[in-house]
Parts: sequence; structure tokens; C-alpha cells
Amino acid sequence: MAEGTLLYAQSGGVTAVINASASAVITEARARKVNVLAARNGILGALREDLIDTTRESAASIRALAHTPGGAFGSCRYKLKSLEIDKAKYDRLLQVFKAHDVRYFLYNGGNDSADTALKVSQLAKTYDYPLTCIGVPKTVDNDLAVTDTCPGFGSAAKYTAVSVREAALDVAAMAETSTKVFVYEAMGRHAGWLAAAAGLAGKHADDAPQIILFPERAYDEAAFLAQVSKVVARVGWCVVVASEGIQYADGRFVADAGGGKDSFGHTQLGGVASYLAGQVKNELGMKVHWTLPDYLQRSARHIASKTDWDQALAVGKAAVQFALKGQNAVMPVIVRTSDAPYRWKIEAAPLTKVANHEKKMPNRFIRRDGYGITAAARTYLEPLIRGEAYPPYARDGLPAYVSLKNVAVKKKLPKWQG
Amino acid sequence: MAEGTLLYAQSGGVTAVINASASAVITEARARKVNVLAARNGILGALREDLIDTTRESAASIRALAHTPGGAFGSCRYKLKSLEIDKAKYDRLLQVFKAHDVRYFLYNGGNDSADTALKVSQLAKTYDYPLTCIGVPKTVDNDLAVTDTCPGFGSAAKYTAVSVREAALDVAAMAETSTKVFVYEAMGRHAGWLAAAAGLAGKHADDAPQIILFPERAYDEAAFLAQVSKVVARVGWCVVVASEGIQYADGRFVADAGGGKDSFGHTQLGGVASYLAGQVKNELGMKVHWTLPDYLQRSARHIASKTDWDQALAVGKAAVQFALKGQNAVMPVIVRTSDAPYRWKIEAAPLTKVANHEKKMPNRFIRRDGYGITAAARTYLEPLIRGEAYPPYARDGLPAYVSLKNVAVKKKLPKWQG
Repeated sequence: MAEGTLLYAQSGGVTAVINASASAVITEARARKVNVLAARNGILGALREDLIDTTRESAASIRALAHTPGGAFGSCRYKLKSLEIDKAKYDRLLQVFKAHDVRYFLYNGGNDSADTALKVSQLAKTYDYPLTCIGVPKTVDNDLAVTDTCPGFGSAAKYTAVSVREAALDVAAMAETSTKVFVYEAMGRHAGWLAAAAGLAGKHADDAPQIILFPERAYDEAAFLAQVSKVVARVGWCVVVASEGIQYADGRFVADAGGGKDSFGHTQLGGVASYLAGQVKNELGMKVHWTLPDYLQRSARHIASKTDWDQALAVGKAAVQFALKGQNAVMPVIVRTSDAPYRWKIEAAPLTKVANHEKKMPNRFIRRDGYGITAAARTYLEPLIRGEAYPPYARDGLPAYVSLKNVAVKKKLPKWQG
Repeated sequence: MAEGTLLYAQSGGVTAVINASASAVITEARARKVNVLAARNGILGALREDLIDTTRESAASIRALAHTPGGAFGSCRYKLKSLEIDKAKYDRLLQVFKAHDVRYFLYNGGNDSADTALKVSQLAKTYDYPLTCIGVPKTVDNDLAVTDTCPGFGSAAKYTAVSVREAALDVAAMAETSTKVFVYEAMGRHAGWLAAAAGLAGKHADDAPQIILFPERAYDEAAFLAQVSKVVARVGWCVVVASEGIQYADGRFVADAGGGKDSFGHTQLGGVASYLAGQVKNELGMKVHWTLPDYLQRSARHIASKTDWDQALAVGKAAVQFALKGQNAVMPVIVRTSDAPYRWKIEAAPLTKVANHEKKMPNRFIRRDGYGITAAARTYLEPLIRGEAYPPYARDGLPAYVSLKNVAVKKKLPKWQG
């Protein structure tokens, strides 16, 4: 039996498969006779010493966790700053770890979380406290460096491509007398990965989505509207997928332009799809519909990608294995070894290479006209949405998602004055 | 071999399973050696003599049609008025029918379509033209009279309940430091059937959705905001499902209140969820997210209800059987014979009882406080979302939806001057 306890925490936005990583962490740790605590609501739970005792959960619950979306232990948006500025918080973390004999800290998240895990490992070394810190990759934004992709992205990408294909069939059927243009708003403030994934819905020139708007390209309204007109003239209808982060050439977000005052003088919440739909209606006089899937796209476990799910499980399992081998300050990353057939493996990457780096979408993934994806993008994206990983359903027609007991262990320290 | 040709047309909004009915119509007709023509883009195709020859489609395509969303022959929003006002159009329809020896007219749609089918049957009788007219039920709005439910509704209902449950898990995980209130906008301009279906996502008092806003209840903003505050205080977060058709006590649509001018003076497209989210943010100061699934909810074949799919197939098959038996001016409707276990059968209902009637949601389905559904509503709704009917997926991770050839037969009449 390994010495000490393993603490698992996840921070930032949750995904359809982050719980699969958690399930794999707990399953692997149980097999190695290591107790797992989970911080409630991410790093905040660690600071507050609010630590969930996962040994209270049945094996069946931990298995069901693997097909449950959301974040079963909670998450948070709470960024630790530098060791200098937030020294007291890092010190508190180490006190909590010591109090509960935490020797392995697994932190599931994006760039910021990788950075926090790295800083904690550095401080532990300074204090000579034996701690192995592992980052576990996760984000629907697919913007983590080094790793081929991030668990969570593939499932959101599959949701996007499937939804766009289905909505397009609806629009195509109705276009003659009803909606001619449909606008789909995809997540992605800084990079158009999910908007690009929508491109997988179409194979031929006139398939939907006929127009994708990427944050990597300046939004030119006149050019966009001209393109919509051209597509409608040729195809009879047009599906537009817009990344929430698209900007004008001067850097203003289009989503901000969408905001305004309603008839009561209240501030309207903006939105790219709503704005673009309004412009199509006002400037082109075409009937338009639009959708903002918002959280539905990142929580849609019912249409998860099997590739994504497998990778979420694999990084969870590898994280425990790396931890127990003492591979400090690393992250299990996905390495693609072959496109066709698609093959991948897990390797350990130093957190220094992941923290605070951002993976941009390569220029060669965007078609020259700026409105679609290239063959290279398809080669990269397509394997990530491959395969289905349906959750089991109960008799009532709903997925059988689990609720954990989430019982905290007894606190040993004074209350955190954070 | 039966005499004459069968003409199939579908009008109004399409659904995830309307093609299943079409597939069943063609399959049953082929078994009975009856040729099927399909009007392109609904009744417009019939008026224009734009008739698709379904015999050109392979058996495999017709099988695949059963799992393809949208409307493969196209649809339209085009309402025929009374026999007096639109006499020329009804006459044209009969001319087209005669020219192509159409003896069976199957019209798939909602109230309006049932009314059109009825009128065509009356006119044929007047002219002594042997024609059997059958309505085929369809609508995600679930507002057709007589039938227990409408094919298309169950799948949209399942999409709604599953999506709300999944999004709620996301919100619950993030609520402490991020989004506290999530607003989901459901289709339903006149009746809150889909909003009610969202209620299936929760079993206990504090499960999401904690608040449902029905068009059957006047929207009281102060009461709504107070309820949101109460739920957030108790649960920590709140999921609101709002029917697009909610109205103030004076009859104004809340969705219209949502519209306004953006910062450029452009008209903003309104929306209930956007408006409610804005009010929660402005009045309660809570972080809020919202979603407008729009067409995604009615085209989501990937999460179709097995019950719904079975019923869509059954009404298609029965429509052909009724037609060949000469049961004129009827609609195959779904009759529920038992709640538990859920049992149903198909019967023929006179179109006179379906046309121009609207099924309202019973008062006893809405909880006394107006914010949720009752046990009676669950008993009715739950069987309708039961079972999964996944489409097959291709190697590329996308559903294998079919595109038909849709080749028209040769025209025999002068061009329609409609």
C-alpha cells in the first residue's frame, strides 16, 4: 500500500467527460490501495479544508460517475496568482495537505490549473514536503499546449457537428417558404476549435455549414452578408456557425456590439448569433433563426465522443500511475502517433511546458476564404468525434446519471481566513 | 395491385421523426404494390405538379429515411383558406391528382393540414372524383386534438428533459463562483407542452428545473424574481425553463418585450430566455447563462424517443392501410389504453374532429404554484420519452442520415399560375 493520501481537485468549466477522468482516478487509486479525497468546488475546497471522502462512494457509483456529465465534486473559477502575491494561499494549501497526509495532488483543469499545480510542487520542494503534483488535462476549448487534444473537447465537438447537421436538414426542408438562414453560436472566446468542428457536418461545397466565422479572422460585415446572399442564391438556404469570440478588425468583440437596451431601457445581453441573425434580417430581409446552445454543448454527455471518453479515462488512470511513480510536476498528455488509422498514447509532459501556454488553431486549418475548414483540419478533428459512448438510460427515458454522497472528512485545521 | 397512385405530402414545421412516417408510408405502399409520389415542399409541390417519384429510391434509402430528421421531400408554411376563397387552388390540386391518377392523398401535418385534407376530400366528393384523403399527425407542439400525442413531440420532449438535466449538472458544479441561474427557452407559442416535458428532468423538490414558466399562466415578474431568489438561497443555483409563449397578464408576449435596439440602433431579435436572463442579472445581480436551442430541439434525431419513433412509424403504416381500405377523411391517431404499463394502439379518427381544434394542456398538469408539473403530468408525459432509438453512425462519428434523389415525374399540366 502506497503511503499517504491522494487529493483530486478540478477547477474551471466542467465538461461532458471530466467525471470520467475522476472515475478513472478513483478506480486506479483503489486498485493501488490509495485513499482518494476530492476537494469540494475545486481549489476552494482545498483551501477551506472541505475534502470529500471518496471511500464512502460505492464501486457502482464510481462506475456510474464515468458516464455522468458536469463535475460531481463541484468546480470553481478561482485563479491563484503568483507565489509572491498569493503566498498565504499556497501556504494554506500545503498546511491542508500536511494535515491530511496528502502526498499526491492531482489537479484537473486548463492552463491556469496546470500553473497552480506547478507552483504548489515548487513550494512543496522549497519546504521539503514530499508531494507529487500532477496536472490532468481538461477543457472544451482545446487550447492546452503539448497535448494533441483536451478531454472534453471531442464530445463538445461531436455535439456541435451533429447538431449543425440535424438543424441543417430542418432548414433545408423549410427554406422555400420559411427560414432561409440559420445561425449557430459556438463556444470559443479565443480560438475557433468548436466552430471548426462544426465544419465536420458537411463534406461537399454546398453542405452545411456553408459559412463558419472564426475568431482567428477579422469579422467583415459587408463580406459576410455578401457571402450569405451568395449561398442562399446558390443553395436556397444557408447555415452559419459563428464562434462567440469573433471580432472586428479593430479588436472589438461582435458579441459586445449585440448588446443594447431593450424597450424598458434594460441592458440586453448580447450574443453573436442574435446579432448576426439581426443583421441578416435587417440588411438582407431574409427570415432567420438562430441558436445559442451555451452549456448544452459542453454538458451533452448523451452524445459524447467515444474517443474523447476513452481519453478522459486514460488521462485519469495515467495521472495516478505517474503520481505513484513519483513523476512530479507532469501532466499526462495525449500523443497522436497516427492519423489513419487514428492511434494515440499517453505520455508525461512537464507542467512547465503546459502552464500558461495557449494552443492556437493553426492557420492551415482555415480555408483561404476564411469561411470553412481545410482537409488538414478534418484530418485532425475527425478522429476526435469518432465513436459513440452512450450513457445507460433508466426506464423513465432519462440517462442514469449518478449523484454522489459527497461526505466531507473531519476538519483538522482552523477555519481558512481567505 | 391497388388502382391509382398515392400522393404523400408534409407541411408545416418538420420534426426528428416525420421522415419515419414517410418511410413507413412508402414501405407499406410498396408492400401493397402501390406507387408513391411525394409532393416537393409540401402542398406547394402538389399545386405546382412538382411530384417526386419515390420509386427511384432504393429500399436501403427508404430504410435510412426512417432514422433521418428534417423533411426529406421538403415542407412549407402555406395555408389553404376556405373552399370559397381558395377554390382555384383546391381545383388545381384535384387537376393534378387526376393527371397523375392520384387516388390516395396522405397529408402529414398539424391542425391546418388536417383541415386541408378534409376540404380536399369534400371537393373530390362534389366532383365525384374517387379520392381517399388521410391526415397523418405530426407536430412537436403536441396540440392536435383526439390523438393522445403527436409524433415529433416525444422526441423533442426527450431532448428537452435530457438537455435540462445535463445543463443542471453543469450549473450545480459551477454555482459557487460562477453561474447561479440558467434559463432554457422551450418551443411552444400557445401551449407549454415542451416546457412541461422539461419537468421530467427532476424528481425531487429541489431538482432542476426548479422553475417552469408556462404560457398557460400569466407571467408575473416580481413573483418570478422572488422565486428565483428563494431557490438560489435554498439550493445554491436555479434552472428556469421558459416557454417561448409566456405572456403578461395583459396578453403581451414577454418575448416581444425582449426585443429592442442595439447600440447601432438596429432592432434586436427578442427572446424569452434572453429577456429573463437580463432581468435576473439586472434585478438580482446574479451571474446568469441562458440557452435558446431553437431548431435543435425539433431536429435532434440523435436523442429521439423510441416511443415517439414507433408511433411515427405506426401512423405512417396505418395511414396507408386506412387509405387502401377506403376510409376517407380520417387520421390515424394514437389511443392510450394504459398508463402503467404504457400501452397504445392506432385508431382512425374523423378529420372533422381533428381539423381546427387545439389540444390545450390540462389545468391539472400544472402545479398549484404555477412553477412545475404535477404527478398527473408525469403520468402522461413520461412514457412519451421512454426508450432510445439511436440512428446508425458512420465511421466519421456522424449519424448516417440519407439524402434522397428526389427526382420529379414528368409534368402533364400547364404551369400553375398561383
